[in-house]
Amino acid sequence: MKHVETLHWVGEVDGYLALIDQTLLPLKCVEIQCRNAEAVWEAIKMLRVRGAPAIGIAAAYGVCLGLQTVAGQAEDALYQRLGEVADYLASSRPTAVNLFWALERMKQRAAELRGRAPTRSVGRRPKVGWAAEIAETLLAEARAIHEEDRRTCRAIGRHGAELLEDGQGVLTHCNAGGLATADYGTALAVIFAAAESGKRLHVYVDETRPLLQGARLTTWELKQRGIHTTLICDSMAAVVMQQRRVQAVITGADRIAANGDVANKIGTYGLGLLAAAHQIPFYVAAPTSTFDLSLSSGAGIPIEQRDPREITHGFGRQTAPEEIDVYNPAFDVTPAELIRAIICQRGLIRPVTRQRIAEVLGAGR
Amino acid sequence: MKHVETLHWVGEVDGYLALIDQTLLPLKCVEIQCRNAEAVWEAIKMLRVRGAPAIGIAAAYGVCLGLQTVAGQAEDALYQRLGEVADYLASSRPTAVNLFWALERMKQRAAELRGRAPTRSVGRRPKVGWAAEIAETLLAEARAIHEEDRRTCRAIGRHGAELLEDGQGVLTHCNAGGLATADYGTALAVIFAAAESGKRLHVYVDETRPLLQGARLTTWELKQRGIHTTLICDSMAAVVMQQRRVQAVITGADRIAANGDVANKIGTYGLGLLAAAHQIPFYVAAPTSTFDLSLSSGAGIPIEQRDPREITHGFGRQTAPEEIDVYNPAFDVTPAELIRAIICQRGLIRPVTRQRIAEVLGAGR
Repeated sequence: MKHVETLHWVGEVDGYLALIDQTLLPLKCVEIQCRNAEAVWEAIKMLRVRGAPAIGIAAAYGVCLGLQTVAGQAEDALYQRLGEVADYLASSRPTAVNLFWALERMKQRAAELRGRAPTRSVGRRPKVGWAAEIAETLLAEARAIHEEDRRTCRAIGRHGAELLEDGQGVLTHCNAGGLATADYGTALAVIFAAAESGKRLHVYVDETRPLLQGARLTTWELKQRGIHTTLICDSMAAVVMQQRRVQAVITGADRIAANGDVANKIGTYGLGLLAAAHQIPFYVAAPTSTFDLSLSSGAGIPIEQRDPREITHGFGRQTAPEEIDVYNPAFDVTPAELIRAIICQRGLIRPVTRQRIAEVLGAGR
Repeated sequence: MKHVETLHWVGEVDGYLALIDQTLLPLKCVEIQCRNAEAVWEAIKMLRVRGAPAIGIAAAYGVCLGLQTVAGQAEDALYQRLGEVADYLASSRPTAVNLFWALERMKQRAAELRGRAPTRSVGRRPKVGWAAEIAETLLAEARAIHEEDRRTCRAIGRHGAELLEDGQGVLTHCNAGGLATADYGTALAVIFAAAESGKRLHVYVDETRPLLQGARLTTWELKQRGIHTTLICDSMAAVVMQQRRVQAVITGADRIAANGDVANKIGTYGLGLLAAAHQIPFYVAAPTSTFDLSLSSGAGIPIEQRDPREITHGFGRQTAPEEIDVYNPAFDVTPAELIRAIICQRGLIRPVTRQRIAEVLGAGR
């Protein structure tokens, strides 16, 4: 990433969120400034920031931005606004659970503080000072979520790297790299860590229609780190496996159910089936915050439907007849039995079973 | 197609080949005029005309155009030119065998005439008149190839329609429709014929990266015939099968080996595996001219590699970093065991075995 961070908070509690507008990559690397919750909502909705962990971090900072409008007001106003902002940000995208996880964590942190005595005096209006302190505490919580994601990505890389061998080919889909997280990725963290340990890898990257995150973002990240990278169309993954060009498939995840079913970028399920047909191990890399243990299986995961124009006008040019019917799910669900292991910051979840997930996640998330 | 023919010869032996420039569809339906063999070569190479049967027909007419330059010259000059033109046209694309089949058929027809006495007098230069008669005979042969393809497509439709039931969903890939043939298609012929017999079908069309023949051409053809059509990205085929939205998959073919292995548009092999994983029958529709019995299996089929820019700059806009390595095979090979039946003009080849293929094709092609 060479000194360019996916997203970062600038300043103190009255500061703002800066993030790379990923829709412009790889041709332009432009940082935009989100100065209110609406700007963060738009950035998530329009995929300027995307990737489950990065969405969670952005949303946490978005809460802080939303509270700036009640700075100087009473505690009750702050809590009311907090609830509104969290609900609002939660409406940006439905599938990635890290979004809801981060918002819930921010609300819980705020709830812990509610009704406690102020810890410092601010003169005649202690309640206002108290609200400011809550806002500061919440900014610290957002920064903590951000920092934890950095450490989580490094741990995922460390645990996953052992699964790859020198000289192997690896297939990945969409972007589960530094741009999808605080700075090191999930699926790509595994590749980065293996490469840093001296293993020479050849990474095949699915372009990932309709929005080409693989072509635009993943190739860009891999190239920056000097990793041998070949771009293919999604429809070429099968022949790449047939020709034994890859010995492993690794993707990220947007939500993982209690039984290990994984919602991820559309096309992942097909890759899981193709990998199984070629006896190639299929791995998923994700932080524990991507698990949604309230869902017994992947059947309960809501799948976002996106604008048909992503398919019919995806490159600024119309490439299908007018008014053609389009089906455009952003995600699909890969059954647990197709996944050899889930790589999280605590280690490998292998085999991917309800019991093993409960064991690894049992000691808190 | 509403009065627009994929390709047609205009005039007599000194005429020209007119064809729809398919790279401009669906936004513009422009007919271009090919007035020499070079123009036909370019049209095939650049996919202005594409689809194995249509390429064969275009190449046959291309031979006629190539011979116009030796009109008025002696017989020997004509035969020399014929060999050169056929070799030249054969170099346009390597995979679709109909191209070589049509050129071979033109050369054989010419060879039958060689050395025979002229059947009519043209005054003082009988050899020249003889050359003109050969040219006329070859134009008639090209027209015959064209007309036979029309009948072949209708027969494929008739035989295949029985495989589809009222109310079913059908998935297809790339374009094996009227635009890929004389006028009725191969895979789409099956759908058209079933629809004409009163069966209501819902066709899911893979957009077919990199050149989007599904999005641009197949949806256009289906829409013109009023068939319920939904466009998807290639990566969505698996979830469409998982959700039981389709009960059959039908594609065309560019070359079929003696054992039934099928080379077709990249992505077809993956669809074959995905269909098998969902117990959905996978059918291939192709004329007998698509069989290459000289090849024992699909391993011998040459696979065309195309320009990386089809992937990195496919729609006039750069969507990947500069100088990224790209793998862009235009076709893949689907093993016979994944194919439930091959639908040709003589009926169904089922099961798809070397023996059954030999039986059906045995009585000449």
